[in-house]
Amino acid sequence: MIAIPDAAGRLAAALGGGPAAQLAASALVEADALGLPRFGIAMLDEWTVDAAPVPARESSQAIGWLDCASCFAPLAVASATLDLAEAARQFGVAAVFLRGVRGFGRLAPFVRHLADGGLLGIAGAEGPPFVAPHGGTRPVIGTNPLALAIGQGSERVVIDVATSTATMADIRNARASGAPLPEGIALDGEGRPTRIAAEVAALLPRGGQIGSLLGLVVELMAGVAGGGRGDPKGRGVFLLAFDPSRAGEGIDWQARLAGLKGDWIEGGGHWPRGGRAAPEAVLDDDFVQRLDTSLARMTIQPGR
Amino acid sequence: MIAIPDAAGRLAAALGGGPAAQLAASALVEADALGLPRFGIAMLDEWTVDAAPVPARESSQAIGWLDCASCFAPLAVASATLDLAEAARQFGVAAVFLRGVRGFGRLAPFVRHLADGGLLGIAGAEGPPFVAPHGGTRPVIGTNPLALAIGQGSERVVIDVATSTATMADIRNARASGAPLPEGIALDGEGRPTRIAAEVAALLPRGGQIGSLLGLVVELMAGVAGGGRGDPKGRGVFLLAFDPSRAGEGIDWQARLAGLKGDWIEGGGHWPRGGRAAPEAVLDDDFVQRLDTSLARMTIQPGR
Repeated sequence: MIAIPDAAGRLAAALGGGPAAQLAASALVEADALGLPRFGIAMLDEWTVDAAPVPARESSQAIGWLDCASCFAPLAVASATLDLAEAARQFGVAAVFLRGVRGFGRLAPFVRHLADGGLLGIAGAEGPPFVAPHGGTRPVIGTNPLALAIGQGSERVVIDVATSTATMADIRNARASGAPLPEGIALDGEGRPTRIAAEVAALLPRGGQIGSLLGLVVELMAGVAGGGRGDPKGRGVFLLAFDPSRAGEGIDWQARLAGLKGDWIEGGGHWPRGGRAAPEAVLDDDFVQRLDTSLARMTIQPGR
Repeated sequence: MIAIPDAAGRLAAALGGGPAAQLAASALVEADALGLPRFGIAMLDEWTVDAAPVPARESSQAIGWLDCASCFAPLAVASATLDLAEAARQFGVAAVFLRGVRGFGRLAPFVRHLADGGLLGIAGAEGPPFVAPHGGTRPVIGTNPLALAIGQGSERVVIDVATSTATMADIRNARASGAPLPEGIALDGEGRPTRIAAEVAALLPRGGQIGSLLGLVVELMAGVAGGGRGDPKGRGVFLLAFDPSRAGEGIDWQARLAGLKGDWIEGGGHWPRGGRAAPEAVLDDDFVQRLDTSLARMTIQPGR
């Protein structure tokens, strides 16, 4: 067994240390702690010793585009998040578009990091076509999640929502187990509803038209404006940050956030916190073994 | 009968002329032409001769907050849109948060104006509590629409979607006509589903959880970061603009947009164009009469 900070610390050191390595390592370890191993240290399978250093942001710009095809993706997204926070403090608002991004895990830890720094963070990621448009029959966009975080402590809100009814991993799992799919989540190759995982050719948007439009919003940002769409080397990801403290005393966004949280819960809503492992949570021996294997591979420098 | 450009021209002159008056006038007249009179020149009822001039943006800032409580709202939103376009060209990305905004009509014409200028525009508006959180029983947020536009000509996309199942105007209409509401759109004062318009105490989010979270995203932007929430003088509105041409030749966002549109339609999807009246459309005599009445009121300067 290993405590989360210890596991994240070991991984951060193997990723070269420093704040970006720390953020990337925490994000991956947290996913395993939350029972989402697909978004966890499994990402280290894509780590290579010759990964390119993460491209640096032009420090005088509020907006930037980065090609991450040669980078280790979790480190690239973490590094872009740190740079974005700096730009948002300088300009009040900043945006970065990444393309060629391979598996990087969940968006939540990155927007939450922006919230930790007093900012409002928004992120989205497009990907290969798995999801049909509302009313359509063939896959056009990815599962295109959108995330937002603002606030600290108990008021903090972290939204992280996929715009599809399911993920392709859910379909793979159902295929392996032979279980029927829930109704209304997938189409077969002829565009007909199906509950047989092996026949799935497209997923449906979450919530019908509104999920379809939100998936399109993410695609237009990360895929069109960001240039990620159709890149065989990886996904398009966008990150935005706003500095609400620029508004001055008159706005008092912290008080408004606390008020909204109170109203939301009183109205019967669930205040989304985006999933965060309890600080005292520990990871089991199977995780430790997987981590050891990954770290050993990362420390043996081939050819030396 | 009157042609759209003629009606917009007359109204723009009455609003003082200039680009912001032109944009505001076109937006209102267009809503009437689209058969949405609630978002049209009916807004002129709130025009007063002593409306404050629209506050000017600090030209050296990428982000700004404006209190519009004393302004004529359509003109304030139009003016903020024009200033935002300038800031987005200067910084690559820019944001403006308006608060105290009274009725201003639809978001679509304003984001479309940003798209006309080669930008990607996003906007959202919060409002008084009509909509319950997903799974909840009491109203907490407004119908909170989100809009996005990018591109020109036939490739252009304009998304403009409310995050609720209906609007309070739909409920008022049903109340007047006595027609039963569709199932699953509203709750009564006890938080139970109702189809009786007179009993409606809360609307439901569109598409369930995803619509509820998107409504919350708009509230966090326009209401919390923008400071609009709970302001009895009006709504919170945010506008964002990005300049995708800053990415340089490598991205070619126009080609990616055309490709996405082709894929979307081929996949069976509807490419959203946000509602635009045909240029040759004409408005009927009833409209002309309403316009004349409004313009007469605007030109008679009380007390002079």
